Amino acid sequence: MLIDDGLEILTEAQCEALLSSRTLGRIGVTIGGLPAIFPVNYAYVDGSVVFRTGPGAKLRAASRGIVVAFEIDGYDATLQAGWSVLVIGRAAEVTDELELARLAASTLSPWAGGSREYYVRVEAEVVSGRRIVSAGVGA
Amino acid sequence: MLIDDGLEILTEAQCEALLSSRTLGRIGVTIGGLPAIFPVNYAYVDGSVVFRTGPGAKLRAASRGIVVAFEIDGYDATLQAGWSVLVIGRAAEVTDELELARLAASTLSPWAGGSREYYVRVEAEVVSGRRIVSAGVGA
Repeated sequence: MLIDDGLEILTEAQCEALLSSRTLGRIGVTIGGLPAIFPVNYAYVDGSVVFRTGPGAKLRAASRGIVVAFEIDGYDATLQAGWSVLVIGRAAEVTDELELARLAASTLSPWAGGSREYYVRVEAEVVSGRRIVSAGVGA
Repeated sequence: MLIDDGLEILTEAQCEALLSSRTLGRIGVTIGGLPAIFPVNYAYVDGSVVFRTGPGAKLRAASRGIVVAFEIDGYDATLQAGWSVLVIGRAAEVTDELELARLAASTLSPWAGGSREYYVRVEAEVVSGRRIVSAGVGA
């Protein structure tokens, strides 16, 4: 489906395939009333974005069940081509012992060291994606 | 400066150098009460992030002077190394004729085609950045 601003809408299946193929995304949270965006290493598990975090804004968002945005994208600067996928959902800390054990055995490993003992899940309630179909022509 | 979760804080000068060296970032806006993150091609001009857009959520945020988040990052998946810079500021549509002429003559060109005749500026009121200093060690 082509929308009118030079972007093509991706299907949900395309979005899910892209979510499953990547490991780095960005999460939008609110800190002290101000918006913020941070990169996170994630896994896409059973329709949810899951990542590890330490005590901080991302965990607080999860504890309060706040609706957050999560984004991944891929770009080729030479071709001026690219795509992005946006996930919107409620953040929740994973507390179920069985699920924690399963996640701990997974490949989900944050790049940054330090203490990141909490797992946060963002259930993908809204998934959308778009792809650039025509390069900008200057001006 | 080293903070306790395996991340090093970047100086403002380092953040500004990174902002000046890149052309693709992500902006966090709110659509219908829900958070969203979209990639944008941008330029860093006189302490502001500037990008072109069509009529939509990003322009509405600018029209209402809303505080938005803007993020850039760079990663090396093999090294599990990376950095990110976060800009927080009020979005404003650029309406000054002289400034518009100067921006139109710049290299600021969106990759996506379609109608993107508006310029939005996010004055960098808060700039922060961080860099991974130690890779995650599994588990």
